[in-house]
Amino acid sequence: MQNKNTTTPVSKAVIARLPRYYRYLRELFSQDILRISSGELARLMNVTASQIRQDLNCFGGFGQQGYGYNVKNLYKAIGDILGVGESYTAIIVGAGNMGRALATGTTFVGRGVHLKGIFDSDPDVIGTEVGEYTVLPMDKLADYCREWKPTIAALAVPRGASRRTAEQLSLLGIKGIWNFTGEELSVDESVSVENVHLGDLLMTLCYEIHAKEQPDEETED
Amino acid sequence: MQNKNTTTPVSKAVIARLPRYYRYLRELFSQDILRISSGELARLMNVTASQIRQDLNCFGGFGQQGYGYNVKNLYKAIGDILGVGESYTAIIVGAGNMGRALATGTTFVGRGVHLKGIFDSDPDVIGTEVGEYTVLPMDKLADYCREWKPTIAALAVPRGASRRTAEQLSLLGIKGIWNFTGEELSVDESVSVENVHLGDLLMTLCYEIHAKEQPDEETED
Repeated sequence: MQNKNTTTPVSKAVIARLPRYYRYLRELFSQDILRISSGELARLMNVTASQIRQDLNCFGGFGQQGYGYNVKNLYKAIGDILGVGESYTAIIVGAGNMGRALATGTTFVGRGVHLKGIFDSDPDVIGTEVGEYTVLPMDKLADYCREWKPTIAALAVPRGASRRTAEQLSLLGIKGIWNFTGEELSVDESVSVENVHLGDLLMTLCYEIHAKEQPDEETED
Repeated sequence: MQNKNTTTPVSKAVIARLPRYYRYLRELFSQDILRISSGELARLMNVTASQIRQDLNCFGGFGQQGYGYNVKNLYKAIGDILGVGESYTAIIVGAGNMGRALATGTTFVGRGVHLKGIFDSDPDVIGTEVGEYTVLPMDKLADYCREWKPTIAALAVPRGASRRTAEQLSLLGIKGIWNFTGEELSVDESVSVENVHLGDLLMTLCYEIHAKEQPDEETED
């Protein structure tokens, strides 16, 4: 199924790779590197140069034959595509270990998203400090959203509460749910959902370990 | 660059999708669903049926024309490919919020990986309880690894300590590093590394929100 609401016909796979380009380009930019060829960028990122050219051509391309990519322009252009300049605001719902990890890490600020508050329903947790935030009670969530209109909610509640809370957030006008509950959620189609499945990455790691342990029995295609 | 150590010529993109198949098949299996067509599975997973057929054909395929996939067989086969039956053991290095979130969540046990211990260097944290674990001191890590030979280390130390700690883990015989430090790590090639970049998912979410906000100006290709 394709999302009829998006205007750009870029595949989700390409979009999912853009943040990684953004990270590498930020690093190059911070090292005052002005330009880079698709071949050099490919070696750095451990992908093929043709993959890079294909991905970036989706957006009209930013390179010149024989010159390579202008690092600053490409970095800024990918940031624009990703909506980095939009200054979205976010809240965290659930102040358990995962919610606290998100609140105290650099993930939001590093991506230009302004974290504004963290909520929990546990009376023992409400009012405690998490980094620079004081945990707010869940029963203030509706008033808060109506007043401050945050764009994004990181959902870090226990799994059993995930659907109910996601629906509540959708009704409160949240535009994007970053879902850490482990439950695959889909809500109203006006709300974007990014389901995080940490265990999938653990399984990929197990696969790689397993594959390296195998005797190298087949070398032919 | 291709990894010369792996024996299977399956692309990383396909491997990265297998855990998601595994999750959906586990759910179907738990609901006593015996078989499913590629079309039904595609609708459920919100991908195309041809993607599913292509992905599963990489492993010789598990379906029969007109019958669909045998859920139990496919679930077990993907688990075998991913090394689920290998009963790997893991440790967590770093008992901050992220380390604690990993220790108290269901991610390890849900993927058949046995979490054995959690380490930290902070005297205030050493000896505290995290779920069913007592935080062990970092200066016992070497002895612990020599004695218990854990396969996987989840790395959740501060970013500045990431490279040094990853090299130490590599020397101690760890086979896979699940890296939550935000730093893109590569160590000795005998060690598999899965770099987790939560911020990449946040940026993808921002892109989706941003794309939905655009007026639907272009409907042609």
